[in-house]
Amino acid sequence: MTFNKNLEKISTYEAGKPIELVVREFGIEQKDIVKLASNENPYGCSSKVQSAVSNIVSKMALYPDDSMTKLKNALSKRFNVQNDNVIIGSGSDQVIEFLIHAKADSNSKILMNSVTFAMYEIYAKHVGADVIRTTSQEHDLNEFFELYKKEKPEIIFLCTPNNPTGDAIDTQELLEFVKKIDSDTLLVIDGAYMEYAIIKDSSKEIVVNELIEQYDNVIYLGTFSKAYGLGGMRVGYGIADATLIKELYKLRPPFNITTLSLEAASVALEDEEFVKKSITLNFEQMKRYEEFASKQKIDIINSYTNFVTLCLNDNQNSTEISDLLLQKGVIVRDLSSYGMNAIRVTVGSDDQNSRFFSLVTKFL
Amino acid sequence: MTFNKNLEKISTYEAGKPIELVVREFGIEQKDIVKLASNENPYGCSSKVQSAVSNIVSKMALYPDDSMTKLKNALSKRFNVQNDNVIIGSGSDQVIEFLIHAKADSNSKILMNSVTFAMYEIYAKHVGADVIRTTSQEHDLNEFFELYKKEKPEIIFLCTPNNPTGDAIDTQELLEFVKKIDSDTLLVIDGAYMEYAIIKDSSKEIVVNELIEQYDNVIYLGTFSKAYGLGGMRVGYGIADATLIKELYKLRPPFNITTLSLEAASVALEDEEFVKKSITLNFEQMKRYEEFASKQKIDIINSYTNFVTLCLNDNQNSTEISDLLLQKGVIVRDLSSYGMNAIRVTVGSDDQNSRFFSLVTKFL
Repeated sequence: MTFNKNLEKISTYEAGKPIELVVREFGIEQKDIVKLASNENPYGCSSKVQSAVSNIVSKMALYPDDSMTKLKNALSKRFNVQNDNVIIGSGSDQVIEFLIHAKADSNSKILMNSVTFAMYEIYAKHVGADVIRTTSQEHDLNEFFELYKKEKPEIIFLCTPNNPTGDAIDTQELLEFVKKIDSDTLLVIDGAYMEYAIIKDSSKEIVVNELIEQYDNVIYLGTFSKAYGLGGMRVGYGIADATLIKELYKLRPPFNITTLSLEAASVALEDEEFVKKSITLNFEQMKRYEEFASKQKIDIINSYTNFVTLCLNDNQNSTEISDLLLQKGVIVRDLSSYGMNAIRVTVGSDDQNSRFFSLVTKFL
Repeated sequence: MTFNKNLEKISTYEAGKPIELVVREFGIEQKDIVKLASNENPYGCSSKVQSAVSNIVSKMALYPDDSMTKLKNALSKRFNVQNDNVIIGSGSDQVIEFLIHAKADSNSKILMNSVTFAMYEIYAKHVGADVIRTTSQEHDLNEFFELYKKEKPEIIFLCTPNNPTGDAIDTQELLEFVKKIDSDTLLVIDGAYMEYAIIKDSSKEIVVNELIEQYDNVIYLGTFSKAYGLGGMRVGYGIADATLIKELYKLRPPFNITTLSLEAASVALEDEEFVKKSITLNFEQMKRYEEFASKQKIDIINSYTNFVTLCLNDNQNSTEISDLLLQKGVIVRDLSSYGMNAIRVTVGSDDQNSRFFSLVTKFL
């Protein structure tokens, strides 16, 4: 059978190896596996969320409340916006999918950083759009602006803090950049790790309500998968001017969030204590990575997230080292597919990090 | 901001009213509401599924096993196929979305029944494809074949049993039809309610493995939202030749099923007793609807599902009657948007159905 031509250019996405798969492949016991590959919250999720979800398992037969009023109310309150400024996706991934399908097609160009979240390009390929990338590894907004003027992209993605490198854009610089962009160009600011950045350095904070009030071509993306500890529940969101949200809504499949996920995310927003504690512990543990890198004479990117990127030396190979770690049950992300001789390691719990340090030392 | 032109033709999908919304709108207490609008399982879901999900709420922070091996193994066993014949979607809706995006574009035609599941048309509009419909209310495969020859559609949707009418195609006729379709035309057989049909009349059963072995252009769709009682968990699937599945996989977003949903669906397949009991009770209760319709001199479509379609008389208006029921806390589906003066009513529990009968009698 023949298929649409743009499928020829799409390869199937390989997600970070789940614990279960490693168990199967190497016969390692589940308790001996340390997964530091997907930037999950090593402290799990709030116990309040766990109780709330357990309490409604009898409701799994009922379709989700597709108006999502409870979660929208909670998000609107959190960001000081209205419910019609909010769209909720199955992970912020799905909001990215809506954005690209709403604004781009096979004649479009989409501008993004040289190294950034893989899903932007994946969804761009779904519609056959051209991907334009900067050359700088960190977001260089001057380079972005030069490429914007030259290429006239339909969409610009800025990821701050950036995945998989962990660096963050200075908010003042970002606001100067937004001003210079034409109002028909969609500007996406992906803040999946923003909860971490804000605690580390307030100059990275974006005041979302002010931004979207001023610019109707800007959307801010957030997620419950990282600081809120709900990676398994698939809930993310976009916040923008109501006109933009309304268009995205046309592409939203009904019931895109499960009944239990809606409850989990709503309750998660009520337990900011859990989030704060996770973030505090994260940066305490991150110091150990900084010390480790310094001792091992490896470059570490200054990270505003819950992961670190270790840029290996020329005599070290990121793919080999990742494979060796994997065979011993420690899962990290090799960044060779991003053109970097580097590994991305989630900052885990104290025990997990100790295990990583003691093992990786053997392979460096 | 400008958006892609096909968005102009898309209107936002209105799902059946969730209980929570009715509570809010009419100030009715939750316990007094009877929702018979979304064909949910009135007996909830298996207690084994509830226990299994409760047991893993501490794992919500972990991304789902994106290989979905456990659920795929269970489905492959159930249908006697291989894992590479299976794709799992966020509801079978999402598999429909993959199919349309893989095979159709703005130059395509998609053939479907005059009255059928609304999502086929909704996703067709997303890619700007033309929708061709039969005139017959029941699936008339002769008419389908005439339109197929004339219009040369890229995709044909057959929904058996059909939603929202409840009738089912005779399998022998269906197999004769499949034979006559060119192998480059994608034929989708949506069996969302098939578990019910099989129990009522074995001549409606489709032997999925034999069908897909013989025809690589045919995909069978199923769901956990109906007989398995997991409407809130968003899990559906497609079963087809491995080549077709591989193409669809290119369009699948990673982690499209939550950690808890994967567990729920896997365990649900282990408790066929629950499903059988639900279906037996369903058809016992359906007799009451048949008797009611006969007594009220209303036409009822012979249903192979967990809902009935009551075709009202000329002096009865489906929209008015649905609204009157809604104001009293009984939610059914008005089919006026499908061009029918009819209401679709989920066959509920004994109490729910009694409540419906006593209330609707006042409005007929």
